[in-house]
Amino acid sequence: MNNAFRWPIRIYWEDTDAGGIVYYANYLKFMERARSEWLRSLGIEQTELKEREGLMFVVVRAEVDFRTPARYGDLLQATCEVAESRRASLTFKQDIVRGIENAGADPAADSGVLVTGRIRIACLDVEKFRPRSMPEAMLQEIAGWRKSLNDG
Amino acid sequence: MNNAFRWPIRIYWEDTDAGGIVYYANYLKFMERARSEWLRSLGIEQTELKEREGLMFVVVRAEVDFRTPARYGDLLQATCEVAESRRASLTFKQDIVRGIENAGADPAADSGVLVTGRIRIACLDVEKFRPRSMPEAMLQEIAGWRKSLNDG
Amino acid sequence: MNNAFRWPIRIYWEDTDAGGIVYYANYLKFMERARSEWLRSLGIEQTELKEREGLMFVVVRAEVDFRTPARYGDLLQATCEVAESRRASLTFKQDIVRGIENAGADPAADSGVLVTGRIRIACLDVEKFRPRSMPEAMLQEIAGWRKSLNDG
Amino acid sequence: MNNAFRWPIRIYWEDTDAGGIVYYANYLKFMERARSEWLRSLGIEQTELKEREGLMFVVVRAEVDFRTPARYGDLLQATCEVAESRRASLTFKQDIVRGIENAGADPAADSGVLVTGRIRIACLDVEKFRPRSMPEAMLQEIAGWRKSLNDG
Repeated sequence: MNNAFRWPIRIYWEDTDAGGIVYYANYLKFMERARSEWLRSLGIEQTELKEREGLMFVVVRAEVDFRTPARYGDLLQATCEVAESRRASLTFKQDIVRGIENAGADPAADSGVLVTGRIRIACLDVEKFRPRSMPEAMLQEIAGWRKSLNDG
Repeated sequence: MNNAFRWPIRIYWEDTDAGGIVYYANYLKFMERARSEWLRSLGIEQTELKEREGLMFVVVRAEVDFRTPARYGDLLQATCEVAESRRASLTFKQDIVRGIENAGADPAADSGVLVTGRIRIACLDVEKFRPRSMPEAMLQEIAGWRKSLNDG
Repeated sequence: MNNAFRWPIRIYWEDTDAGGIVYYANYLKFMERARSEWLRSLGIEQTELKEREGLMFVVVRAEVDFRTPARYGDLLQATCEVAESRRASLTFKQDIVRGIENAGADPAADSGVLVTGRIRIACLDVEKFRPRSMPEAMLQEIAGWRKSLNDG
Repeated sequence: MNNAFRWPIRIYWEDTDAGGIVYYANYLKFMERARSEWLRSLGIEQTELKEREGLMFVVVRAEVDFRTPARYGDLLQATCEVAESRRASLTFKQDIVRGIENAGADPAADSGVLVTGRIRIACLDVEKFRPRSMPEAMLQEIAGWRKSLNDG
């Protein structure tokens, strides 16, 4: 996980609820932000993917464990790792962790994991709303990123 | 205001923030729900308006006073009145009030007004994103509704 | 599932995203609304539970399959069934289904299931944020409701 | 406006609606983020203000003009300027502008203004929910910031 893509998330009032903590569904927003930014970091803009290729991504499954609540003002990170890659779907392992500096060498020591998720997205044809393979260049981009993570 | 269209709004956790009250931007969601339901009550479905007529509504101005906060569990009403009607725009007077039964005869006694708003929406051409007149039938529907309010 | 608690959900603009469909995290809001209303139907107000008993509920795990997207204007139902009940936690089976009238006799015919979820909530002490047993009366209320479902 | 505090806002799917543009109420979230970060830039943490001083801020009035819609993927900025400062309230002039680099010398040339807002917040006693003066140090911090803007 320490080599995962990481994106900072600051908690604002909009994210919290009257229980004093972040409303549970909002962690899924944070995970989506990280996926969008990870794609952007690979040079993939979803708007272009839609206009040029007629493709869009939708989430088909989410499995999320909420361990420790975040609160107003917290500075978190949403991580993003590809756990499984197919031609028309991607499964991400995503965590919400506290702090910027906790990418230590020992994963077990990363005690600041607030939320863990496993999110599967499907690549769909915009018109037919049916699964369609991602473009070859994109699949290679993702494969290359995964390889660099493992090598790193 | 007592003859205004009224739509019930129950406050859930998603609507509140860690201050213990409804997050201010969410009252604008409630007002939009009431506008959608008011249009629906006139037989106007925005999806059909888009597909058949190539028209959509966007909010161009919002003026909102937040007087008294709502909290989790409250049962409110969002009201909807047309304050001004033009060919390509509508200005609504909208309140968020407490309780279902407070449509008394004396407006001054309606002490349960939590939020008051004045919202202007424009009718746009979906493609050009430019103002375009609402369909004649819709304008007449709205004029008829306003007349019935004043007569009632 | 046909005997499950059901709560109507109308889709507004706030619920959708630029993909033209309901934003995935928002289905978790709908499920929370159904849980809140199910508790309310049992005479349990979460605000009172917090003030009188010092208890609150938090979601600790969510497992959600997004099968078919909902769109602006759709009238859905969020269902709520207790799959597992312990002293300090409840696991719900929750679906988002299309239409009001699809509670037919044949579950297999209930083809309008858009989203299925399994949501676990924990009962926490408000101060210590540690698991604490629900009040005995509440546990009995829930057991009674489950029995009536099976008998029904 | 060119000297105003500026905070970057990236548009994600969560911010948009099925009209293909940012949902109108969400611009008020962006403005709140900018106000939170502006306070943070002055060394004021709202959580501490609540715990140490028993003070919180609530929005009492919002006046917003929505001129040009933002879309998924846009990189915007939310600005924050103090238009009026009293002992127990602050009125902000806030814009949502496109791009990071458009803080040119000529305000009239700043054509990338999508949304303009005027937001008034009140400082409240957390217990009584009544207006209370901000701490003297905070008022001076704000006065100093405003002076530095005008001098700059």
